[in-house]
Amino acid sequence: MDAIQLKDYTIYLGPLQESLPGFLKQLSYSGLFVIADDNTQEHCLPRLEDALGHSNFTLIRIPPGEAHKNLDTCRQIWSGLMDRRAGRGALALNLGGGVIGDMGGFCAATFKRGIRFVQIPTTLLSQVDASIGGKLGIDFLQAKNCIGLFQNPLAVFIDPAFLETLPWRELRSGYAEIVKHSLIADAAQWERLRKLRRPGEEGWEALIAPSLHIKKQIVEADPFEKGQRKALNFGHTVGHAVEGVALETDAPLLHGEAVAIGMACETFLSGRELGLPEKDVEQITRYIIEHYGHHPLDPGDFDAYLRLMGNDKKNEGQQINFSLINPVGQAAVNRHCTPELIIESLEFYNSLS
Amino acid sequence: MDAIQLKDYTIYLGPLQESLPGFLKQLSYSGLFVIADDNTQEHCLPRLEDALGHSNFTLIRIPPGEAHKNLDTCRQIWSGLMDRRAGRGALALNLGGGVIGDMGGFCAATFKRGIRFVQIPTTLLSQVDASIGGKLGIDFLQAKNCIGLFQNPLAVFIDPAFLETLPWRELRSGYAEIVKHSLIADAAQWERLRKLRRPGEEGWEALIAPSLHIKKQIVEADPFEKGQRKALNFGHTVGHAVEGVALETDAPLLHGEAVAIGMACETFLSGRELGLPEKDVEQITRYIIEHYGHHPLDPGDFDAYLRLMGNDKKNEGQQINFSLINPVGQAAVNRHCTPELIIESLEFYNSLS
Repeated sequence: MDAIQLKDYTIYLGPLQESLPGFLKQLSYSGLFVIADDNTQEHCLPRLEDALGHSNFTLIRIPPGEAHKNLDTCRQIWSGLMDRRAGRGALALNLGGGVIGDMGGFCAATFKRGIRFVQIPTTLLSQVDASIGGKLGIDFLQAKNCIGLFQNPLAVFIDPAFLETLPWRELRSGYAEIVKHSLIADAAQWERLRKLRRPGEEGWEALIAPSLHIKKQIVEADPFEKGQRKALNFGHTVGHAVEGVALETDAPLLHGEAVAIGMACETFLSGRELGLPEKDVEQITRYIIEHYGHHPLDPGDFDAYLRLMGNDKKNEGQQINFSLINPVGQAAVNRHCTPELIIESLEFYNSLS
Repeated sequence: MDAIQLKDYTIYLGPLQESLPGFLKQLSYSGLFVIADDNTQEHCLPRLEDALGHSNFTLIRIPPGEAHKNLDTCRQIWSGLMDRRAGRGALALNLGGGVIGDMGGFCAATFKRGIRFVQIPTTLLSQVDASIGGKLGIDFLQAKNCIGLFQNPLAVFIDPAFLETLPWRELRSGYAEIVKHSLIADAAQWERLRKLRRPGEEGWEALIAPSLHIKKQIVEADPFEKGQRKALNFGHTVGHAVEGVALETDAPLLHGEAVAIGMACETFLSGRELGLPEKDVEQITRYIIEHYGHHPLDPGDFDAYLRLMGNDKKNEGQQINFSLINPVGQAAVNRHCTPELIIESLEFYNSLS
């Protein structure tokens, strides 16, 4: 059992059974709610139930997937809380990936002006990314996480055992954030990742902990994303747009898959805007194609991408804002790129293979 | 020009023209949005435009009234912000009564995880009640303000000139909160109010300022409503339920009208639970009937009232929680009353006339 102490709360790393019961025991709450989707109900709830023992709880079940990370699903969650007359002393356990954590947290933080909640992330992505930062929210009109707020959970429980049931594609998606953390803040870690034969081969815990430490440092220095925290947005300006458009198709991309595409494009932009050396651009983009394959972007969607980037939260006014890197392991925030250069980066990605 | 300094922000009391321009001048923002409804657009926006001078702004107009204080109207506001590509540096001015302030504030506080907002309350109710406390939110499934959060505005501008266009019924509604403030915290002020020939006759400013000072003291001692702040809920447990049911009828009650009924019922409960002397119970309830008339409650709605009270935010579990008074000018929070006694208080109200 490992624990990472943040300013306001603790992240417990290890078997749920060893950490959660003691944590709940020292709390007083008027009702216990578990928010899960169809998948986590099947694959993860049994393990949570083991840890909860004889505690009674109400399950609020929602449909799975990013496509349901919206106001309609919030209505379902709030209605579920209302139906059981949840009071302000209620406690919510969000059992699932980023969608459940972001949306369950948002619903908890706004129900009766805020009830307490605990995050139990069950995907690699949510374990390394959503565990720190207090970002809660839902999508709105194709814009990711457009409605939301900052609020830290009471605690986070990361149990790597949940990863065992995940398909490789999901793990690869989460791994993109691990790659990102190294590229923006830890060149030595990037060198280590580059040399792994197959990420996760020797257990994910060894990759999760260093990633959390990187994110903790960045977020605690800038909790409300006024400046340097935007470094975490590397790969996400293009990535969110690609993800948003793909969401409307028959072949939606997982978040990390879209971010991988975004990192390739923004590595190109880092070369053009910041002078990131050609060999790094090549090394990083090749690594991405090797691990994530190549998903050609339809030039007919380029306008839609630009529109979505224009609505990104990190922007001021009409400018499109990027967080870029140079050298590897160091980020520069608030870099503007022209629409023409952005389109060039998309064409650059398409030219890889 | 008067100013009340709170911990996080200032309330400016006086003509908008004298305070707003200077305030905005020292701010930097990427876009200015005014959220108003059909009524405030007609009656209040011209005065705001005079104060804004040549500043450009985008108007987001929503339908008026408590019936629209819901998620659908939030969608309109968020869409309006999205359409104009509002960034995190945008500033929202909420021009209107409690609905606009609560909902516009909620939408601002959750748009892109929070943009700044300024409250310009235009009704007596919102001037004395919503100006302090940071409560933002919307109604959900008949439960008032069920979805929301605590967040203070950047500043509040109270211009009594806005009251000139208000119908007497609206003024009377706001006056209920002034009465409440005196009953829970200032017996001398209650004595003064009792002796007024007609409230507001000598200008509302003289009544607004003392009320704000009472509320400031209570809220700053307990910003997140963990304890004593619940005193402000006097009249509101029954009041919210009566308001919620009336909202669904052809004859909705204004908030303060419902609170007046609630205060009558809860004054009765104060007599029964806390021993508030009979002469005070009589004096207060007679005052309420004199000023607010008598609106018989349909016994067929009593069950619905109890259900709504059960969902009130101040409750824990199944208990229905009241803030009661004894003596006049002093409140006791977290008082539970049985459903039988609550029904008795509703029947007591019906017996008045």
